[in-house]
Amino acid sequence: MLRLLTAGESHGKALLALVDGFPAGLTVDTAAIDVELQRRQGGYGRGGRQKLEVDTVEILSGIWQGKTIGSPLALSVSNRDSKLERLKELERPRPGHGDLTGAIKYLGSIRGILERASARETAVRVAAGALTQQLLGQFGITVFGYVVQLEQIAAPPQPGEVTALKALRDASPLYTLNPEVDPRLVTRIDEATAAGDTLGGLVEVRVIGLPFGLGSHAQWDQKLDGLLAQAVMSVQAIKGVEIGLGFEASRRPGSQVHDEIAFDPARVNEPTLGYVRKTNNAGGLEAGMTNGQPLVVRAAMKPISTLRKPLASINLDTKESETAAYERSDVCALAACSVIVESVVAFTVAQAFCEKFGHDSLTEMTARYGKFLELARER
Amino acid sequence: MLRLLTAGESHGKALLALVDGFPAGLTVDTAAIDVELQRRQGGYGRGGRQKLEVDTVEILSGIWQGKTIGSPLALSVSNRDSKLERLKELERPRPGHGDLTGAIKYLGSIRGILERASARETAVRVAAGALTQQLLGQFGITVFGYVVQLEQIAAPPQPGEVTALKALRDASPLYTLNPEVDPRLVTRIDEATAAGDTLGGLVEVRVIGLPFGLGSHAQWDQKLDGLLAQAVMSVQAIKGVEIGLGFEASRRPGSQVHDEIAFDPARVNEPTLGYVRKTNNAGGLEAGMTNGQPLVVRAAMKPISTLRKPLASINLDTKESETAAYERSDVCALAACSVIVESVVAFTVAQAFCEKFGHDSLTEMTARYGKFLELARER
Amino acid sequence: MLRLLTAGESHGKALLALVDGFPAGLTVDTAAIDVELQRRQGGYGRGGRQKLEVDTVEILSGIWQGKTIGSPLALSVSNRDSKLERLKELERPRPGHGDLTGAIKYLGSIRGILERASARETAVRVAAGALTQQLLGQFGITVFGYVVQLEQIAAPPQPGEVTALKALRDASPLYTLNPEVDPRLVTRIDEATAAGDTLGGLVEVRVIGLPFGLGSHAQWDQKLDGLLAQAVMSVQAIKGVEIGLGFEASRRPGSQVHDEIAFDPARVNEPTLGYVRKTNNAGGLEAGMTNGQPLVVRAAMKPISTLRKPLASINLDTKESETAAYERSDVCALAACSVIVESVVAFTVAQAFCEKFGHDSLTEMTARYGKFLELARER
Amino acid sequence: MLRLLTAGESHGKALLALVDGFPAGLTVDTAAIDVELQRRQGGYGRGGRQKLEVDTVEILSGIWQGKTIGSPLALSVSNRDSKLERLKELERPRPGHGDLTGAIKYLGSIRGILERASARETAVRVAAGALTQQLLGQFGITVFGYVVQLEQIAAPPQPGEVTALKALRDASPLYTLNPEVDPRLVTRIDEATAAGDTLGGLVEVRVIGLPFGLGSHAQWDQKLDGLLAQAVMSVQAIKGVEIGLGFEASRRPGSQVHDEIAFDPARVNEPTLGYVRKTNNAGGLEAGMTNGQPLVVRAAMKPISTLRKPLASINLDTKESETAAYERSDVCALAACSVIVESVVAFTVAQAFCEKFGHDSLTEMTARYGKFLELARER
Repeated sequence: MLRLLTAGESHGKALLALVDGFPAGLTVDTAAIDVELQRRQGGYGRGGRQKLEVDTVEILSGIWQGKTIGSPLALSVSNRDSKLERLKELERPRPGHGDLTGAIKYLGSIRGILERASARETAVRVAAGALTQQLLGQFGITVFGYVVQLEQIAAPPQPGEVTALKALRDASPLYTLNPEVDPRLVTRIDEATAAGDTLGGLVEVRVIGLPFGLGSHAQWDQKLDGLLAQAVMSVQAIKGVEIGLGFEASRRPGSQVHDEIAFDPARVNEPTLGYVRKTNNAGGLEAGMTNGQPLVVRAAMKPISTLRKPLASINLDTKESETAAYERSDVCALAACSVIVESVVAFTVAQAFCEKFGHDSLTEMTARYGKFLELARER
Repeated sequence: MLRLLTAGESHGKALLALVDGFPAGLTVDTAAIDVELQRRQGGYGRGGRQKLEVDTVEILSGIWQGKTIGSPLALSVSNRDSKLERLKELERPRPGHGDLTGAIKYLGSIRGILERASARETAVRVAAGALTQQLLGQFGITVFGYVVQLEQIAAPPQPGEVTALKALRDASPLYTLNPEVDPRLVTRIDEATAAGDTLGGLVEVRVIGLPFGLGSHAQWDQKLDGLLAQAVMSVQAIKGVEIGLGFEASRRPGSQVHDEIAFDPARVNEPTLGYVRKTNNAGGLEAGMTNGQPLVVRAAMKPISTLRKPLASINLDTKESETAAYERSDVCALAACSVIVESVVAFTVAQAFCEKFGHDSLTEMTARYGKFLELARER
Repeated sequence: MLRLLTAGESHGKALLALVDGFPAGLTVDTAAIDVELQRRQGGYGRGGRQKLEVDTVEILSGIWQGKTIGSPLALSVSNRDSKLERLKELERPRPGHGDLTGAIKYLGSIRGILERASARETAVRVAAGALTQQLLGQFGITVFGYVVQLEQIAAPPQPGEVTALKALRDASPLYTLNPEVDPRLVTRIDEATAAGDTLGGLVEVRVIGLPFGLGSHAQWDQKLDGLLAQAVMSVQAIKGVEIGLGFEASRRPGSQVHDEIAFDPARVNEPTLGYVRKTNNAGGLEAGMTNGQPLVVRAAMKPISTLRKPLASINLDTKESETAAYERSDVCALAACSVIVESVVAFTVAQAFCEKFGHDSLTEMTARYGKFLELARER
Repeated sequence: MLRLLTAGESHGKALLALVDGFPAGLTVDTAAIDVELQRRQGGYGRGGRQKLEVDTVEILSGIWQGKTIGSPLALSVSNRDSKLERLKELERPRPGHGDLTGAIKYLGSIRGILERASARETAVRVAAGALTQQLLGQFGITVFGYVVQLEQIAAPPQPGEVTALKALRDASPLYTLNPEVDPRLVTRIDEATAAGDTLGGLVEVRVIGLPFGLGSHAQWDQKLDGLLAQAVMSVQAIKGVEIGLGFEASRRPGSQVHDEIAFDPARVNEPTLGYVRKTNNAGGLEAGMTNGQPLVVRAAMKPISTLRKPLASINLDTKESETAAYERSDVCALAACSVIVESVVAFTVAQAFCEKFGHDSLTEMTARYGKFLELARER
């Protein structure tokens, strides 16, 4: 079982991810993890904090001579802005945050809640996701996230090969696959900044090169669609998740939804085993299992809850109406969100991959992966 | 920890749910569970099987003298149409089902997969959900699901009190809260039936009477929004989940999304503790915790995958193109879906409730619930 | 993940085990499970109930055409003596049982506790264990339990091959491997019966044919010794667990404990890979992992808590001193205990085996098992 | 759910414990954790490393203004001797360690295994245990471990009150409760040191002040005896666990084992609720639940596996016979073992306590604890 727990507060000493059950024998590229951490800090619309800190990962355990050894990996991202002990309590809970509900649930301070509820925690989920991407990469699997809509402005992904699309994305101020729309997105963020408002949007993640049979139909809590939905919805600010056509599937008749099956003997050596589909409306998942097609997940990010022009709230001590407290924040973190959702999808897919192929050692997993394709072709 | 595992095949002897960690001291109303089972079998658009069988629950364990005793409850729903051993293998996998991917993953038969992947399994998830509704009912919590859209026809819920709305729903052929639109929905299903096609739509579940603080912000896998998304997405045919405004939240600026906080001393004895919101765009969840407002979850159901006018597929043995196999099926199970999603939401909320208030005995939970409101008011 | 939950009360309708994550493709021999169930009912010293009921398993799910299909298996053992609804509350808790503490914890009845705490529940743990033994058998792994001591009378196992030893055990009234001592054991039980007393003893389980590497050193909750200790200690009436030399290891210097390592090229094709040990003081487990040697686990069973000559207790309603209630019981269930401990060890080993080799299908597991031996030999 | 995962290697940067689900509102005494860490480093028989390093805990997360906030706590113990990257591979596996089996399981290096399998990892299990002791202390619960036997020399605990006994223990070179025997233990360790050998023994842990009803009889994996056995057996070098009379219970007739129940109205306000026992042979656990009596757990520690006078082994590359590698080690770590077993027992009891009383906040737990005693008295 590949497991993830995180710890750490927004202004504490560090964020930590403990990744347990990671296979032995993988050469870990720390710099590649840092690239993802810095992608998470980028994107148009971020505030001042991201410029203060350049996140880098420190791997505290689980590696010897550059390779994983089967031990848990502890990934640490330090907070340069580590001032928690100097920070004060807030009295005026901010709508959209956990301030009010957390203070009541735990019968404690707002500060204690917001420091942990903060999206700063996602830094180490990105680190963990980037680590698992290196594992998945050994099997030709690519996880790839980008922005597809800002508020009401669609930025439909251009077609193309992954490498070209990644280049497109990495050149985009908002991590879209659509350079033509980008200027309009930037303008819209400038408008919102001026108005003291915030913006959300849609992100999409594709996973390419997947074999058949990750996840399982056999028990509700083993279905990969459910596990993905949990991981994605647990990301701060996400209010909706869909797979493949998603909500659009509910608006079409069955004859226009299900992906007809054909067989192409020329592709029998691919992970698809030659079973091809003209459409991929299912988004790569049928009955909670991967079906050899690209996995497609989309998530809806609400606009950031902390507004420069604060919302109405109350003083929790006096119960009088006051405006919400203001903690430094961004106008739009949608680009970052695409990195985070990519990361949690990667981790979840890696969990399913480890469940299917075992996770003692890369050597054994590699042998098993090849053997599975062979047995599956013979079925 | 309140846990659920299910077992059973579509045409096997029975479906079973094992509910572990259920509190002692609840008088269980078996007939009320049966009502939900039969609601699941109803709704316009169902096929012949639902008429063959009238599902009833048998509780095999966990009860003495009508009350729960802290033991696991085994809930059984028999299959009157229990003919699994006489059924044959299928050669032609049906698009949209787990047939192809399951046969490959498990290197086995299609029959072995479809029998478990079938939505027949949801019968016992409904039984388990109905059981937990009785628990939640002890705390004034109501879970309430209905249909809000069929294919492209919206059936917006009418406003009203829960009791009136439930009556409306129970009188509706499609479990909507909108009798004016119902005839159009029926007509659309008749059209699809005639065309050999199938239909999906949207269902919505509201949970009313919730206290603050179910779920937690503190660890990604404890966030209630993530757990709800998993439970809902793991329901057969669901391709999208959203909470509160959901995807619409991504299309609005922050100033039009977050629910401003006010305080009404007259309502201090409600579960809201007097913290009131004019809007509920968050759908009752902030930072993965309930915030005293109604929980609102919506799910997108794809049209049923088995079409009378079959889709293109292949013969898995010969790899030649053939049409997909046909197993008896419905045209539209959207009404049933609203019952199922209601049930899994109820179970998930009950898990979070048990996590917050303990789950040894109803006596203790009741005392704790009252004490929490008291401590929370004093905070 | 191979999982087990059970349900059912001692005098309820049935005991149930839900086994989730069991591999597809195993031909299940139900009669062989029944043999274990009936072994559990046998042994010298059992009371009347065992003669009333002859336990047999009914598999309610997870099988088609005699083979597992990857679905959860629900195993049911009916209670012919199913009279729970007619049974009355007890007022006088029986020392050694959960009566007092359970009634307080759950703020409920004693009846509700004892019905679930009863060792009757182990019937389905035996069924589940017997099922997993069939899986392990596919890989040449044998799990084999027997009695080694009754009260203070040792019955040291004779040396020999498994088949011969099993025959010896199955001919023994107390499931020992020592026919010479058996008459003394029988006599001692007769004495205890006459005295209205009860007896316990020691059971031992060996697992033969194990590969290297089940369990893991990498995280405390993945260590196989810990998992075995949990499974065994969770069996009713067990108060001690030891592995290999166990407590005796604490009484010797290191030079007389650790099993020196040698290499025998002639045995390289065995699961030991040719790594041989003259001693097996570790009982097959080092650092929480199997080391190719036989696994040896011993458990201490306390005498049955219900005595015909009752112990002092109180009336829970009046708090006055009275003797404990008497529910029909055995004088000595030690032979049965050897079957139960064998079963829970088998299940736990099967979990570790599935974790190491995956658990989708027997076909894939078989290929992987062979490949692991090959890679391990080359290491 | 209170959870624990650890990370870190023996010569890596640090050991880490991630404690998730810890209640809010506890003032943490870091110095008191350090006391336990340093107790773990002490005791007669330790080698040079313990003098090199003085372990202290750093709490990286989960605290604000000295109090827990409901967030996960990351506990770090740095390795001053952090030289992992300079360390070389071993070729000759050491009997009794995970060297051979781990290298085979993970198809990797011995170094990668031994660094994680090392008992150095227990430093952070002690830190986590010490943290939970502070929580338990709020409810008058004391967890208290000591040595009761070295090799074959018994050091029976003297009777007395906890405070006096702790003083006795803390003055003992081997953490016994028996100053008369201590000189013989020291002499025996000196002999073993001279002989190049190692020694084990028995440790015992008592938990005092427990309420009724921690753990549960209702499901095998919720029984507190099983959970304790897992936690204790998962400690490096432990080969046996027993509760209460333990193995001795198997050697006595039932009439001399079970603890008769009486009622003393004068003690009704104690956690025992006035239910008293003259004996505590059950060791405080019946049917997997605490029964208001002191919990008593004993563990058998094997002698340390690394001997200065090395054991026979092989060269894993050549398969030739050679003596085992030698890594710096202790002669006897029994005193440390008593600290470690105390810690894992404390953590496990705290888990059960949190399961029973919830774990959002100390405020709420305190109210619930009192209310439970009240309801239980009225039952």
